[in-house]
Amino acid sequence: MNDFLSRLADTIASRRPERGGSPDASYVARLLSKGPDAILKKIGEEATETVMAAKDGVPEKIVYETADLWFHCLVMLEYYGLRPEQVVAELARREGLSGLDEKSSRQLK
Amino acid sequence: MNDFLSRLADTIASRRPERGGSPDASYVARLLSKGPDAILKKIGEEATETVMAAKDGVPEKIVYETADLWFHCLVMLEYYGLRPEQVVAELARREGLSGLDEKSSRQLK
Amino acid sequence: MNDFLSRLADTIASRRPERGGSPDASYVARLLSKGPDAILKKIGEEATETVMAAKDGVPEKIVYETADLWFHCLVMLEYYGLRPEQVVAELARREGLSGLDEKSSRQLK
Amino acid sequence: MNDFLSRLADTIASRRPERGGSPDASYVARLLSKGPDAILKKIGEEATETVMAAKDGVPEKIVYETADLWFHCLVMLEYYGLRPEQVVAELARREGLSGLDEKSSRQLK
Repeated sequence: MNDFLSRLADTIASRRPERGGSPDASYVARLLSKGPDAILKKIGEEATETVMAAKDGVPEKIVYETADLWFHCLVMLEYYGLRPEQVVAELARREGLSGLDEKSSRQLK
Repeated sequence: MNDFLSRLADTIASRRPERGGSPDASYVARLLSKGPDAILKKIGEEATETVMAAKDGVPEKIVYETADLWFHCLVMLEYYGLRPEQVVAELARREGLSGLDEKSSRQLK
Repeated sequence: MNDFLSRLADTIASRRPERGGSPDASYVARLLSKGPDAILKKIGEEATETVMAAKDGVPEKIVYETADLWFHCLVMLEYYGLRPEQVVAELARREGLSGLDEKSSRQLK
Repeated sequence: MNDFLSRLADTIASRRPERGGSPDASYVARLLSKGPDAILKKIGEEATETVMAAKDGVPEKIVYETADLWFHCLVMLEYYGLRPEQVVAELARREGLSGLDEKSSRQLK
């Protein structure tokens, strides 16, 4: 499954205008060429749509909007020269550190 | 890295209070027991933190906040009885449909 | 100043399609006719743009994006038959209750 | 109701730590002393809560969460040395420019 995210990240990377991605033909190339604010705005937008889909409680919509959110996260990571493998490694690091619940201690104030 | 997200989703699922997860000891159990609004609020919050990290342009922060965002998406999916495999399948479906850029046509209005 | 917000809310209300607002000619009529998700998505989007403008630290952009955010809040309020006066009354109630810092006690857990 | 937002902004301004606001006693002083990310995170959070309240369709919750959102916008404006009067002036400028629907032309791409 993560292998798919890696491959998807590769495809997104190949859409960079400087690698030949065409902003006219490709949504991703267009987004990457517009710069960070256009990409980040989509993250805010898709997060809101994910929240609305969840409030509606329609499973297909939740899956669809979460896919949109993760997709735009991959575009954002590529924009900053980062990889989903690094995000997964961070999640793995936390799990290894102290079980899944490392956050519980981190969040006790 | 393979299937890490699936395993993480399994661990999150095991934290459901009705499966013995303890809201006192586990951040995830606590969040799941608080209900959807508490979980969805975190998605809005972590999306905002991801956007701020990206504006700061600090790679480690971007990775860290994206991990937080994906983690809370996994908790949300579990709350609604959904799996990350379904999100990945949706992303794969889109890629299969028309290349990565299915969205470009979808978004032309 | 609040008088202006009241008048602006009146103008927005007059754009309701059932009061003769034309979705073809008016952005507000179009948004109101699209329904809640289109309006709420704008709130998530404009909040994200406000956050980005603040991170950029450009005063005119902050003012501009906050105006966009408040404007879409007014459209949302109108959609639900609510008025900005009620929001201001809620803010006044809090201030009266316990000084501006009522929230501090509310937020101590 | 008149000028309530201006007075509220004055009260918020008086909570600045350098003007004697005490982070121990005042929520606003605490937030201002924590810096921009803490304030901006609240804007993302309150925007999400406003969206959720709207999806629930409970009028009192919508008013309550919109009040929270506007309140934190006022704190953010103060942090950047800005005033709600400037936001209202921007809204008035747009209305004067081309009617309420200036945005419609702005948004036609």
